[in-house]
Amino acid sequence: MAKTSNEESLLSGALSAWTTNVERADKLFFSLTPEQLGKEIAPGKNRLIYLWGHLTAVHDLMLPLLGLGPRLHAELDEPFLTKADKVVANLPSSEVIKKDWNEVNGKLRDGFAKFSVADWLQKHASVSAEDFAKEPHRNRFAILLSRTNHLSYHLGQAVIRDK
Amino acid sequence: MAKTSNEESLLSGALSAWTTNVERADKLFFSLTPEQLGKEIAPGKNRLIYLWGHLTAVHDLMLPLLGLGPRLHAELDEPFLTKADKVVANLPSSEVIKKDWNEVNGKLRDGFAKFSVADWLQKHASVSAEDFAKEPHRNRFAILLSRTNHLSYHLGQAVIRDK
Repeated sequence: MAKTSNEESLLSGALSAWTTNVERADKLFFSLTPEQLGKEIAPGKNRLIYLWGHLTAVHDLMLPLLGLGPRLHAELDEPFLTKADKVVANLPSSEVIKKDWNEVNGKLRDGFAKFSVADWLQKHASVSAEDFAKEPHRNRFAILLSRTNHLSYHLGQAVIRDK
Repeated sequence: MAKTSNEESLLSGALSAWTTNVERADKLFFSLTPEQLGKEIAPGKNRLIYLWGHLTAVHDLMLPLLGLGPRLHAELDEPFLTKADKVVANLPSSEVIKKDWNEVNGKLRDGFAKFSVADWLQKHASVSAEDFAKEPHRNRFAILLSRTNHLSYHLGQAVIRDK
């Protein structure tokens, strides 16, 4: 067995943290009925369905940001990203969000599997080549870490709900 | 300027994510009065002071786990880790928690600054040498990532509170 290099070990740890958190979200959201998803996490706060749609939209945006292809579900932006919860009257159903969530995370997983360490250290799509030359930490790996933290942040909120 | 190696770039990204989240927590908790810290994040849920003490205890535990020295504040375990909120009658004051929080995070920061990539890839203290030989992903770097996510998770909860 070839010895894993230090850079591969570090990357593998970060990918594992991403996968663990996606699996936690799967387990949590898949276990909820449409009625439960329609409830607020606390009085007057976001509904669970909003958190799930929001996470799906943010993960979908990672595709172009990481150079893994175009958005799959830009229609999620208005209800779950640009507008607050309970502003848009007709949200996509939980079946639709589940399908989109799985599709987006699957495409990310396939893309991640093909990225080398050097690919992860390339600039992400929202930074100019000029800025990236001065700020090389604005790379794809930073997006992976920050989106893993973003997912944890909202998972922490989702578990607040009354069971 | 020496070119940064790939492994140094990856590590630097993860350390930056840790620091960013500690700073977010500083900003949030330092801005609250003792009265605000005594409020629940939502009806019947944990109080903010409990979240802060819990995070301090978990960060304190990182010191021995990462080989950075003994615990500084094991007295936080009972009120904030082993017992649920509102079980222990007399919690440490918010001034004490703030002091402990700063002390623990400062010691972690100093220790992190001295760790090489190879140090981060060493086994953490809760895994045996035998298990680590089979499961090399159970390293200190995995602790850094998981505790960053843990911090995000509870920050997401802390912002739920009514302002």
